[in-house]
Amino acid sequence: MPKSNEIETRWWGWGDTGKTYPVEQRPTYIPFLEEKLDIKVEKVREPDPDLESVKLRKTRLKAKSLEALSKIVGEDNVSTSRKDRIYHSVGKSYRDCVKARMGEVANPTDAVVYPGSEDEVVQILKLAEAESLAVVPFCGGSSVVGGIEPLAAEGLAGAVTVDLRRMDRLLRADPESRTARFEAGIWGPELEQELAKRGLYMGHAPESFLFSGLGGWIASRGAGRQSTGYGKIEEMVESVRMVTPRGVIETRTVPAEATGPDLDRIICGSEGTLGIITEATMKVRPLPEVYDYRGLLFKEFEGGVQSVREMLQKGHVPETIRISDAEESAFAMQVRKPSSNPNKEKAIQGALGLLEKLGYSFYTGAFAVLGCEGKKVEAAGRMKRIQSICRRNGAMPLGKSTGLEWYHGRYDHPYLRDIMFGWGVMTDTLETSTTWSNIMPLYRETKKAIREALADYDSKSVVTCHLSHSYETGSSLYFIFLGKIAEGREIEQWEHLKKKAGDTILANGGTITHHHGVGYEHAPWFEQEYGPQGMELLRGIKKALDPAGIMNPGKLGL
Amino acid sequence: MPKSNEIETRWWGWGDTGKTYPVEQRPTYIPFLEEKLDIKVEKVREPDPDLESVKLRKTRLKAKSLEALSKIVGEDNVSTSRKDRIYHSVGKSYRDCVKARMGEVANPTDAVVYPGSEDEVVQILKLAEAESLAVVPFCGGSSVVGGIEPLAAEGLAGAVTVDLRRMDRLLRADPESRTARFEAGIWGPELEQELAKRGLYMGHAPESFLFSGLGGWIASRGAGRQSTGYGKIEEMVESVRMVTPRGVIETRTVPAEATGPDLDRIICGSEGTLGIITEATMKVRPLPEVYDYRGLLFKEFEGGVQSVREMLQKGHVPETIRISDAEESAFAMQVRKPSSNPNKEKAIQGALGLLEKLGYSFYTGAFAVLGCEGKKVEAAGRMKRIQSICRRNGAMPLGKSTGLEWYHGRYDHPYLRDIMFGWGVMTDTLETSTTWSNIMPLYRETKKAIREALADYDSKSVVTCHLSHSYETGSSLYFIFLGKIAEGREIEQWEHLKKKAGDTILANGGTITHHHGVGYEHAPWFEQEYGPQGMELLRGIKKALDPAGIMNPGKLGL
Repeated sequence: MPKSNEIETRWWGWGDTGKTYPVEQRPTYIPFLEEKLDIKVEKVREPDPDLESVKLRKTRLKAKSLEALSKIVGEDNVSTSRKDRIYHSVGKSYRDCVKARMGEVANPTDAVVYPGSEDEVVQILKLAEAESLAVVPFCGGSSVVGGIEPLAAEGLAGAVTVDLRRMDRLLRADPESRTARFEAGIWGPELEQELAKRGLYMGHAPESFLFSGLGGWIASRGAGRQSTGYGKIEEMVESVRMVTPRGVIETRTVPAEATGPDLDRIICGSEGTLGIITEATMKVRPLPEVYDYRGLLFKEFEGGVQSVREMLQKGHVPETIRISDAEESAFAMQVRKPSSNPNKEKAIQGALGLLEKLGYSFYTGAFAVLGCEGKKVEAAGRMKRIQSICRRNGAMPLGKSTGLEWYHGRYDHPYLRDIMFGWGVMTDTLETSTTWSNIMPLYRETKKAIREALADYDSKSVVTCHLSHSYETGSSLYFIFLGKIAEGREIEQWEHLKKKAGDTILANGGTITHHHGVGYEHAPWFEQEYGPQGMELLRGIKKALDPAGIMNPGKLGL
Repeated sequence: MPKSNEIETRWWGWGDTGKTYPVEQRPTYIPFLEEKLDIKVEKVREPDPDLESVKLRKTRLKAKSLEALSKIVGEDNVSTSRKDRIYHSVGKSYRDCVKARMGEVANPTDAVVYPGSEDEVVQILKLAEAESLAVVPFCGGSSVVGGIEPLAAEGLAGAVTVDLRRMDRLLRADPESRTARFEAGIWGPELEQELAKRGLYMGHAPESFLFSGLGGWIASRGAGRQSTGYGKIEEMVESVRMVTPRGVIETRTVPAEATGPDLDRIICGSEGTLGIITEATMKVRPLPEVYDYRGLLFKEFEGGVQSVREMLQKGHVPETIRISDAEESAFAMQVRKPSSNPNKEKAIQGALGLLEKLGYSFYTGAFAVLGCEGKKVEAAGRMKRIQSICRRNGAMPLGKSTGLEWYHGRYDHPYLRDIMFGWGVMTDTLETSTTWSNIMPLYRETKKAIREALADYDSKSVVTCHLSHSYETGSSLYFIFLGKIAEGREIEQWEHLKKKAGDTILANGGTITHHHGVGYEHAPWFEQEYGPQGMELLRGIKKALDPAGIMNPGKLGL
């Protein structure tokens, strides 16, 4: 089996080039969208954009620099090929993909290097500093906030992307202490496979899991599907090594300490602006015996929100939580694949009808997925307590099959975005977090703002939200919206919406990002959140570790 | 009832001047020490040192500066009195107290100011910067690592200590989100009282609880008795405000975010070197119905260690854990107060004899205290699961009364240190943390190093250790040692031991501090742990926020 990072992925959109979203198997989806957005879908599939049609400027690297890079990493591990340069310069945000489709890659990297060791990383940074080249660290390249685009930076002569995929070993497992150390270039599937061989498991599975890796997760402070139970990535980091232009920072593998400001937490979220993360020791746990995922249906979103708050505050914590509001529940219904067995489908429809009679509807209620992972008996006991909280808040359990259906389809949806673009449909996501007392007002105001922003461009809208990644003190909220593309004004339309939604989130006590990161798309709000003194602090760190300003310029507002 | 910060405390030692340790009620203690350390205790109580005997240099502040300070905070809130200046310049470390007893306060503050608002703090910092005065933030002053001593700093004309005790309000409680916001000057007892009025509880109770407060806890990254359940202070901070010489930093009250390096975690542990913490929003929880503390006796320390690892890794987590090794268990026995009821005492001795026959001894085994706090039924269920793990690892439960005895005496022991000094006995504590696989080797090597260091000064020794503050991946270890003072060479002897023990801890994979902080006593090891690039990073932050270097100079190696 090929490694996940050997699978060919799209340069202009999401995921495996061999995969797509089987819209054909979802008969109600296109009619639903046509009605909701007042559009007409002409054909289901657009042809793929042509790599050759991208306007790509020549590499700015001199032959001498390329030679020097080859000397460090070996000739086979330096590339200036059209494909490599484009692939490494286009992130996965809506804006990135729209521009790439239009053949526009304004800031291409000038070369891609694949170091095989930390020592090579050190040498690359030395060379880059000496030759005034920007360095963009690259793990899976799945950033949806503009994290990997080599932005133009004053005084720099070019940009080199450092792809860490060759540095992908498990270095040490310590089952007694429940830690494992990896090189930072290891991607999700291999990380879990290496652990599984040893009976261990990390349990960080963001939507990008198949196409992203450890270094990127840490650099961007990501959260996996099971973060309610296992924590965000920064809570899993026990220690870390980062190569900066001024040398290597290494933290100690201890469970906690009082040694000044927490260096691990400064490296987490640094988004490549301070250095390149090369290794990390992570918290791990035994491989779960069961992955118990269940579907439930609440009469209303508030009941689900209330249930999650109760679970978390009572200490009955599932690994995974997802409470969809009515719009998202309806969406899930419209995008579902009917069973190929007509009798089974009839039974499902019958059950849905019965649910309706009992007052439970996917069109006015809230579909929820809860997941407990771990030892069989323990997880079952926990799931029982959790479901009983939900029932007290008016939920109807839908059983394991509904939960499993979601679990098995959990990495498929991002493909849909790129298909819908061909239909003239814009879709993107926004996420935030806030305290429980702010959740419902923030939820309502943000949905309103998104709807209005789409209306400003004469578009009807579908705006959905789910609550996930929850805490004792609050939760994340995740918004997905669909609207009609304003043709010829795609980026302007998106920026208008982003501005309105971002401002609304901040005005209502949310953060601009709970787990997507900052990159450059979130930089304006990030600077507002961090404040002028916070930005001074960050620039102080930057100046100390990267005085020449070569590390991932333009990200985090730096 | 007076507020805790209105109680008069010792300027030369620990705690309430009205309290001491009732050695007289512990008949076996002095003979035990005499034998173990080969000393003779001449008299039980030394007279208190005389404040008037301290050599105190005149305040270096000019009348003009004092006037300007008075203008900011009001005349009553500026003090240059002998008592205030000494009290605010002497920390609570062994070294601090020895020097103070000897009448030596080498670095006295020049004035103490008591601001009543954040705006006053801002103005004090402006004035201090303009007049090149060091600023030492002061909450409870209970630092045991030299955190509050105003060290001499080049280019500065004097030092002002900013005591935050007037800024002690609860600002907002949000029970729905389980958060509460306070001014940073509130001390432990008042913080919990304010919460208790609202049915809430924070649960951060370090040994200094009665004489320390929120700002200090955050600045030094402390841990409370119940940190195994509730986390260290940095895990309770939801957001924080800090006044720096360059302006105010404020973080957002959200449960989690991906907005760059975590500012909260940079402020936690900053030890006053970047600014003065003025407010924080903290995670809180409902006031526990029960505080269920139990004593247990293991046949050996390893059984206790193994049990704690198992509990934590299985998710059966008590709030409080303390597993004493054989030396500490024996110590607890020698320092215990016999019951005043002879029949009861006889029963206790009978029980101890019976335990011995069953192979359980306080002299070779490990005494443990476990505490579960919370709802009655939930805490009882948890305690049951925890005790059953302990029993499987060979522990004998001793019941609630033993646990409660420890619980009620938990703030008394620090008083003993200052009494023993009068006996010619040096005693101090060291703490660290490491991963489970390192725990036992680190434990053995550190005890050995301490014993050797004491022998180097011709002293026999009692060296005890307990495991507390535990995590899935490892635990803290806490060492207490007693030895014979090398008269006339007290500081040299202590420094020799500190060096040997600190080096051993670092060489064996520990951190120089799990919760005491760095101050200046830990600065050499801190710099080693942080590494040269880490120190560059820290100096970069310092330069950005405090370019004149007025904030708590000399701490954290800055």
